[in-house]
Amino acid sequence: MTQTAQSMQSMANAIRVLSMDAVQAANSGHPGMPMGMADVATVLFSKFLKFDPARPDWSDRDRFILSAGHGSMLIYSLLHLTGYARPTMDDIKNFRQLHSVCAGHPENTELAGVECTTGPLGQGLAMAVGFALAERHLNGVFGDDLVDHRTYVIAGDGCLMEGINHEAIGLAGHLKLGRMIVLWDDNRITIDGDTDLSTSEDIAARYTATGWHVVSCDGHDFADIERAIAEAAADPRPSLVACRTIIGKGAPNKQGGHSVHGAPLGAAEIEASRAELNWTLPAFELPADVVADWRAAGARGAAASAAWDARAAANPNAAELARRMAGDLPDMAQAETTFAAWLEGSQKVATRKASELALEVLTPVVPEMVGGSADLTGSNLTITKATPHLNADNYAGRYVSYGIREFGMAAAMNGMALHGGVLPYGGTFLVFSDYCRNAIRMSALQKAKVVYVLTHDSIGLGEDGPTHQPIEHVMSMRMIPNLEVFRPADVIETAEAWSLAISNTGTPSVLALTRQNLPQLRKSGPNLTAKGAYRLEAAAAPRKVVLVATGSEVEIAMAVRAALEEQGIGADVVSMPSMSRFLAQDAAYKADVLPAGVLKVSIEAGTTLGWQAITGLDGLNFGIDTFGASAPADKLYDYFGLTAAKITPQVVAALQNAPRPAADVQN
Amino acid sequence: MTQTAQSMQSMANAIRVLSMDAVQAANSGHPGMPMGMADVATVLFSKFLKFDPARPDWSDRDRFILSAGHGSMLIYSLLHLTGYARPTMDDIKNFRQLHSVCAGHPENTELAGVECTTGPLGQGLAMAVGFALAERHLNGVFGDDLVDHRTYVIAGDGCLMEGINHEAIGLAGHLKLGRMIVLWDDNRITIDGDTDLSTSEDIAARYTATGWHVVSCDGHDFADIERAIAEAAADPRPSLVACRTIIGKGAPNKQGGHSVHGAPLGAAEIEASRAELNWTLPAFELPADVVADWRAAGARGAAASAAWDARAAANPNAAELARRMAGDLPDMAQAETTFAAWLEGSQKVATRKASELALEVLTPVVPEMVGGSADLTGSNLTITKATPHLNADNYAGRYVSYGIREFGMAAAMNGMALHGGVLPYGGTFLVFSDYCRNAIRMSALQKAKVVYVLTHDSIGLGEDGPTHQPIEHVMSMRMIPNLEVFRPADVIETAEAWSLAISNTGTPSVLALTRQNLPQLRKSGPNLTAKGAYRLEAAAAPRKVVLVATGSEVEIAMAVRAALEEQGIGADVVSMPSMSRFLAQDAAYKADVLPAGVLKVSIEAGTTLGWQAITGLDGLNFGIDTFGASAPADKLYDYFGLTAAKITPQVVAALQNAPRPAADVQN
Repeated sequence: MTQTAQSMQSMANAIRVLSMDAVQAANSGHPGMPMGMADVATVLFSKFLKFDPARPDWSDRDRFILSAGHGSMLIYSLLHLTGYARPTMDDIKNFRQLHSVCAGHPENTELAGVECTTGPLGQGLAMAVGFALAERHLNGVFGDDLVDHRTYVIAGDGCLMEGINHEAIGLAGHLKLGRMIVLWDDNRITIDGDTDLSTSEDIAARYTATGWHVVSCDGHDFADIERAIAEAAADPRPSLVACRTIIGKGAPNKQGGHSVHGAPLGAAEIEASRAELNWTLPAFELPADVVADWRAAGARGAAASAAWDARAAANPNAAELARRMAGDLPDMAQAETTFAAWLEGSQKVATRKASELALEVLTPVVPEMVGGSADLTGSNLTITKATPHLNADNYAGRYVSYGIREFGMAAAMNGMALHGGVLPYGGTFLVFSDYCRNAIRMSALQKAKVVYVLTHDSIGLGEDGPTHQPIEHVMSMRMIPNLEVFRPADVIETAEAWSLAISNTGTPSVLALTRQNLPQLRKSGPNLTAKGAYRLEAAAAPRKVVLVATGSEVEIAMAVRAALEEQGIGADVVSMPSMSRFLAQDAAYKADVLPAGVLKVSIEAGTTLGWQAITGLDGLNFGIDTFGASAPADKLYDYFGLTAAKITPQVVAALQNAPRPAADVQN
Repeated sequence: MTQTAQSMQSMANAIRVLSMDAVQAANSGHPGMPMGMADVATVLFSKFLKFDPARPDWSDRDRFILSAGHGSMLIYSLLHLTGYARPTMDDIKNFRQLHSVCAGHPENTELAGVECTTGPLGQGLAMAVGFALAERHLNGVFGDDLVDHRTYVIAGDGCLMEGINHEAIGLAGHLKLGRMIVLWDDNRITIDGDTDLSTSEDIAARYTATGWHVVSCDGHDFADIERAIAEAAADPRPSLVACRTIIGKGAPNKQGGHSVHGAPLGAAEIEASRAELNWTLPAFELPADVVADWRAAGARGAAASAAWDARAAANPNAAELARRMAGDLPDMAQAETTFAAWLEGSQKVATRKASELALEVLTPVVPEMVGGSADLTGSNLTITKATPHLNADNYAGRYVSYGIREFGMAAAMNGMALHGGVLPYGGTFLVFSDYCRNAIRMSALQKAKVVYVLTHDSIGLGEDGPTHQPIEHVMSMRMIPNLEVFRPADVIETAEAWSLAISNTGTPSVLALTRQNLPQLRKSGPNLTAKGAYRLEAAAAPRKVVLVATGSEVEIAMAVRAALEEQGIGADVVSMPSMSRFLAQDAAYKADVLPAGVLKVSIEAGTTLGWQAITGLDGLNFGIDTFGASAPADKLYDYFGLTAAKITPQVVAALQNAPRPAADVQN
């Protein structure tokens, strides 16, 4: 072993000891991965990774993503050792405790240097595809001077076994994202036991078949690790580096077995590990020479960072890059003027078409918008004249053909948004939000501004039938924290929703859009969608009813209102494109829109559970609580009772049979 | 071309013509796939598939699964032509119309011969893995005499590109399901255009790497198709048959392009196609000789079916197989007696542990129960002494190591349940229900009795943090039609939920279970979970409040009740292990459990939206509407305000500030 290797061994052992001690102190966590991958991570962070701990927001840093997020002590150790301001040793001592930045799984919202939140297996690697794609895209736009970095991933067997891995590597291979390098912790252990309990595949062959370069190394031989990463960096394809490791290496009696994966080692094994590693210091104390070596590794990036500053100072496009990286929108006045002019018109279009019209206005003005679809471009209507295809022949393009890969698309969009400089939106059918649901959740958890264009949003899609007809989807996505679900009623609300979605900071959005045409209901501004809900049409006769509807059912509510008014029953129509936004308004506004003492009626072609939050238990809820059916849309609306002819008499009956109490709603 | 080939060509063209005409009549649908795969399907159904149209429920039939479900006219044509009672030609004329058995996508609940409902891409093939696994399992139990059939799949590029494909074929390859044959419609077209728009992978190499046999053929050469399927059948591995086809073959001006995928051909192209195919009859009329050839193909299976009957009549185990295939449970008296005895005890266990205890009682009694986990066996506690591992060395086993493949597991379980003879249950963390959410939905849509054991069901899991803590999951799964979500409060309710879950017919179940220990609250029977909700503890002082809680929060509700009663405030505690079941009770029962005129308070460590359906708008809803955090569970319960100390004063304040109206609830 050379002197350097000895030094690196101590550096790696510092990770091992910190990890096992922090997990022991928390009495919870995963020591196996950090101990197994400590050697690989040491080579990566001391020889390859371009980063500057003093400046974690440097836009041209390499990105490091710990896809195997349960091994969070690995990244906490690395950030601490290389000299980031946080985590401090006190932070590490508070691993997995309330308010610690060292959470159980790494959270990008807690700690600079954590590029994305990982833990749900497979998604870190899939987000890394988005990071790598954003890098190539911005490189295509801004050139090597400003954008020239790599994306490194540490992934475990779980990340590779998940279905999303197929989608992610398929996309990366197709897009030739050669600056992406995945370091696979090939320890042949999963939670339940040896990997051969559940898998027999030849992972290297699968990656090769998918357009990847594959190289192997001994994950405990520093020189071999360095050779393999260098080979990976040299290859034009994305690379998988199979690092043959021993899980929990350093724990002499537990290493190599699945018991070391997800539980503290225990005092005795920690003592044995200290002996094995010749580590004499107590927990949370580090040798000064090892710290110095790590700080030197961390200091490598300062020169590159300064050089980048010099180049940026001389580059006329640096300000635009900075704007995009900051997430600041350009001047939107022109787009808003265009949208305002639509109020004068009378466009009867599907809201998916309205979305396309809005995108035709927005995408020329907002160059960071990068669109795409999971192979439903002609259905989602997500491409515009301003968004040429983005592919290996044209990284500066702005439209990604994600393929039939909903989950991979959503995760990639999360990565693009978190890389910065890109405002991604992508389409699929609303019902297939199920396929990418956890990535949508991860958008929200990570505060990643991603816009999901989810079309064919109800039985209104018609003949494709119950497999394709959302029922529970709109309401159930409203329950995901920090996700805004828009269901606009016409071309105006669709444009308003788009404006809000791209203006939101740290909040992803869903646009639930129709396949079928809808009349333009709104004739006046301002952006009323910004209130979440508003009175679209006030009662003419004395008000007895408030009809609350969303999307395609607002038209139906208007027809119900007309029928009621004909009978002398005054009815407001409230359009509610964003329930969460409405519920966040002040009490006075809510009480004005939903006044006490009148019957509240909800109409939405989906689950009724949840609407009681608007109507109370003495309101009426029209919706669908079974699966849909295959038939033309108008037949289905009739069959499921969502027509003015079927709703109106029930409203009348409710008014006759059950006089309202004076005050029945608390908002 | 031989005489046979000429005859087969006409048989195949009958599929083409029926498909294009039905799509045209519906003015909606997908002609491309049925026309492209007509030749392959003709070979399969006339030379290989073992089936008896007169007896679609014959348990030893081969299973045919149209994973590319959008091409539904293919299977409708095949079922009609081979002589199934349905669809009739009138059914086909009503393709995609309300109440037609010929729905937009094939639905197993509508039509015998449709083994499972397909359309959500990738899941048909993944369900087929479950079918093939069920076959091998039952073969392992009952032997070749009674169980000896194959599983055939037709899949398109979409099914192969979806992430679930990786999970499905990984599982099938590992389990050596050699009797599964996938016929891949290799037409190099997706909705957005050529496949090279979004993918560059070598599919054959990927399948080979995953343990599959791969063979290719010209999908329009009958002899070559026959050769390839014969090779596939002979190989001990699962097989992928790459059928090189032209999408929409027979439509001379549109074939080979993506425009033929999902839209009617139009009158002119239909006319041109008739000319191309030398087809002179008008729509929905078929030549007698072609019908006769198809009926002969359908009649092939009668002899095998009769021979099977003879073997079954002589086999002492046939009755047991028939019981399992019928989905009838064995005598459960002994298990129920054991559970009843638990009422005398005082077991303080996590409900995941309670589930394990229940499974230890149930699995020896119910041999068709086949368990598993997506690599979380030690966390989900899903294995029992009665369930040895099921793998390629022991298909008669009863526990599947599904690997880190939640979606693949769920789809496979759907396939096992729909094959019949197996009652599958499988575990993962509740938060990762997101990964398999559409397969859970498909359990419900297909009426497949699958039990999802979803543990770590709230912030109560503690330190793993927000990526692993369900918030919206329980409530949002309650919105999936025909899915029963149980969240039991103790060991008794857990056993009751298990009893109900396996007794339900045509309804899948979710068991949401805790990581943390819970006291035994119930001391008396009968199965009160059967009511969905019930009064666990009645008020002592005059009743002012009803506290409604589920799962781990029932213990908290009991503590709140105690604190209220100390202040002289009478409070009921209602445990609500199944909201859907409660809402389905009669009005009198609901009014008894949730009486008018008293404050309703819900306590559940998840989304509050939805609970207004129980409490009304003037109730109180305690829950969590943000993401969780990483910390020990008790710290989190305090932080999120879910303790008796924090809830009780708010209930008291609500009672003081807002006297209840006389009647505020309609149930």
